[in-house]
Amino acid sequence: MSIISALNWRYATKRMNGEKIPNDKMDSILDAISKAPSSFGLQPYSILVIENKELLSKIKPIAMMQPQITEASALLVFAAWDKLSEKQVDTFMQEIADTRKVTVDSLKELKGHITPLLKKSDSDNFMWHARQAYIALGVALVAAAEEGIDSTPMEGFDNAQLDELLQLKQKGLRSVVLMALGHRDAANDYLVKLKKVRRVKEKLFIKMQ
Amino acid sequence: MSIISALNWRYATKRMNGEKIPNDKMDSILDAISKAPSSFGLQPYSILVIENKELLSKIKPIAMMQPQITEASALLVFAAWDKLSEKQVDTFMQEIADTRKVTVDSLKELKGHITPLLKKSDSDNFMWHARQAYIALGVALVAAAEEGIDSTPMEGFDNAQLDELLQLKQKGLRSVVLMALGHRDAANDYLVKLKKVRRVKEKLFIKMQ
Repeated sequence: MSIISALNWRYATKRMNGEKIPNDKMDSILDAISKAPSSFGLQPYSILVIENKELLSKIKPIAMMQPQITEASALLVFAAWDKLSEKQVDTFMQEIADTRKVTVDSLKELKGHITPLLKKSDSDNFMWHARQAYIALGVALVAAAEEGIDSTPMEGFDNAQLDELLQLKQKGLRSVVLMALGHRDAANDYLVKLKKVRRVKEKLFIKMQ
Repeated sequence: MSIISALNWRYATKRMNGEKIPNDKMDSILDAISKAPSSFGLQPYSILVIENKELLSKIKPIAMMQPQITEASALLVFAAWDKLSEKQVDTFMQEIADTRKVTVDSLKELKGHITPLLKKSDSDNFMWHARQAYIALGVALVAAAEEGIDSTPMEGFDNAQLDELLQLKQKGLRSVVLMALGHRDAANDYLVKLKKVRRVKEKLFIKMQ
């Protein structure tokens, strides 16, 4: 499916039918997410993949009882690093060195661009990490649509309660956005029939002369 | 190109060759951006499209003298709404009503979900708008790669100076992230030869049992 067809086909699915997504499609979506760009390539987030129905039932009341939570095949929780630590930067440098078969020492210049961020407040860095997670969400939304898999991005949940349920604090993470993956229940989803609303391009884009 | 091939092909292009992007490819990328999902479908941002070389020369010193600014075919400036106003919500409601051929009155329930946000601080709403713009950035990055167009997402610029140069305040906008679009100058770009570094999936994804 072309990206435009995929974006036209997708919509924020309100009801799903509980069917499981084939493993190969799920793998493709996660593969795309893992390739998503981020500032410096740091990927300052993790993505929790939840398929366990019992756990999903516990998440539903934290997420405004949205039915997709339990009707989905999988729920992705995009969780950003709650702060930036020297250890995380060092691990990242080591990963670059290992991948590119160079010494960590040769990466001094790049490290010099990242280390000033360690002086920023934890909340500033968390907000920056959250934005990077939203790039990954954008990639994920396209990837799912191109696989013909329905999805719903969801911000309507109690972050603190979800963080506690999933013990994210202990993992150095804070939840930022959810994405349900599954198959639309077209017969019961009012939104599937409604026309997609988008600002006209003349208003969305400002062409500078 | 499949999304995985496209994501593997792309990289944060450091040097571009100044060649113009064909109009049809530019249109496809903007089309994809215009279809990007956002919370409620609100699209609380605009995207400035800058091809004017003189203006790009003025932006370059504001963006750490990064050569892609002037070597690109076009620079996109993702700019989020600086606050949320009742007028913007009403305009959005009218757009939905017009698109779906219903009355504004019939959209009361949806409006009831959005209006509480008007009570939030301008800075909170701006940060939320910025996150939505990052979803559009994620979509744009995939769209460009699938068209075989190189791109560079850029956060390294002085937001206040750029806002002033582009008179964004007067437009109710604040710049959040840039994206240069063009063609790689493979002979002069050190990064094109380097292996992409990504966290191994076992670390990036946390599979909850």
